[in-house]
Amino acid sequence: MGDVRRELSNPPGVHPPQAHYSHVARAGQTLYISGQLAMDASGAVVGVGDARAQARQCYANLTAILAHYGGKVGHLVKTTTYITHWAYRPLVAAARDELFPAPPYPANTLVVVQGLAEPQFLVEIEGIAVLD
Amino acid sequence: MGDVRRELSNPPGVHPPQAHYSHVARAGQTLYISGQLAMDASGAVVGVGDARAQARQCYANLTAILAHYGGKVGHLVKTTTYITHWAYRPLVAAARDELFPAPPYPANTLVVVQGLAEPQFLVEIEGIAVLD
Amino acid sequence: MGDVRRELSNPPGVHPPQAHYSHVARAGQTLYISGQLAMDASGAVVGVGDARAQARQCYANLTAILAHYGGKVGHLVKTTTYITHWAYRPLVAAARDELFPAPPYPANTLVVVQGLAEPQFLVEIEGIAVLD
Repeated sequence: MGDVRRELSNPPGVHPPQAHYSHVARAGQTLYISGQLAMDASGAVVGVGDARAQARQCYANLTAILAHYGGKVGHLVKTTTYITHWAYRPLVAAARDELFPAPPYPANTLVVVQGLAEPQFLVEIEGIAVLD
Repeated sequence: MGDVRRELSNPPGVHPPQAHYSHVARAGQTLYISGQLAMDASGAVVGVGDARAQARQCYANLTAILAHYGGKVGHLVKTTTYITHWAYRPLVAAARDELFPAPPYPANTLVVVQGLAEPQFLVEIEGIAVLD
Repeated sequence: MGDVRRELSNPPGVHPPQAHYSHVARAGQTLYISGQLAMDASGAVVGVGDARAQARQCYANLTAILAHYGGKVGHLVKTTTYITHWAYRPLVAAARDELFPAPPYPANTLVVVQGLAEPQFLVEIEGIAVLD
């Protein structure tokens, strides 16, 4: 499998990472996308106190990262959704339903965690995508 | 790698997902399986208050999903095990030892989280499998 | 894709797992590495109460596991970093910056969880690597 090419990058349209990591790693046709938080391209927090707005921004970031590789949300095979409170589950589901109004849906794991990178973040969504 | 075929599905023998996600996504020979909770095929909760029984049901779901693709638990390469309390660790290990009585064992990460999709769930197990 | 070979192992230089799991599963060129805790090769806890020292040990374990397959940390494409308290984030970042002083950096997700396998563990780091 000498055709596995690795590329780690921070695509345009998404804020620069706050620490030493890449937003996405590509290995062959597989994209491993870092957990996305609700920050716009300038790094400003979006949707303070609003889990639905935050989830929308997380998905917008995932979408921008996929687009950098010619991909779409339909290429996501698996997401992991971290929320910091029970109450956010239906709000995040609502944002997800906007993105995926009809099947096929990616696989997903949802867990409630103690916290994310900073207290203002209520939602984090990471993804694995497989391009055509 | 034009031979990567993607398929997202909800195999028979496992409850329909409660939200817009698939139980499993297949990309080539790799299966990304959503975090499984202790629900039987009808969606009824199994093992209320009993982490060992819940873990058994999670593994039963993983097994059913793998079987849909001709796979077995031996095809699991990685699991992630989420539990909601310290006390459940040996109970989940006991269920795991039933499933994998001898090596080789899959890689695994265990973390204690604040909560899962609903309060009655004590254990969630997701997996990545690679078919032959 | 009949060239996918699976191997699950516990490489030398890393403590034997405490339970029935493998430290790493190889599928083709992809390595799925179990969440690593701060234990040395003898199983002794390293860095009690010191998240930076613990993160260093986690990375040392990842490095040893990669080396077993001829890999280096540069082959990591994705890590997931679990910490048990906010305060550990900059400490873990410092250890990470030692390992990855310059780009390219792997993708990463960081979450704060309730707990890890035992109370003395403050940090757990798992990884996916793709070999050449």
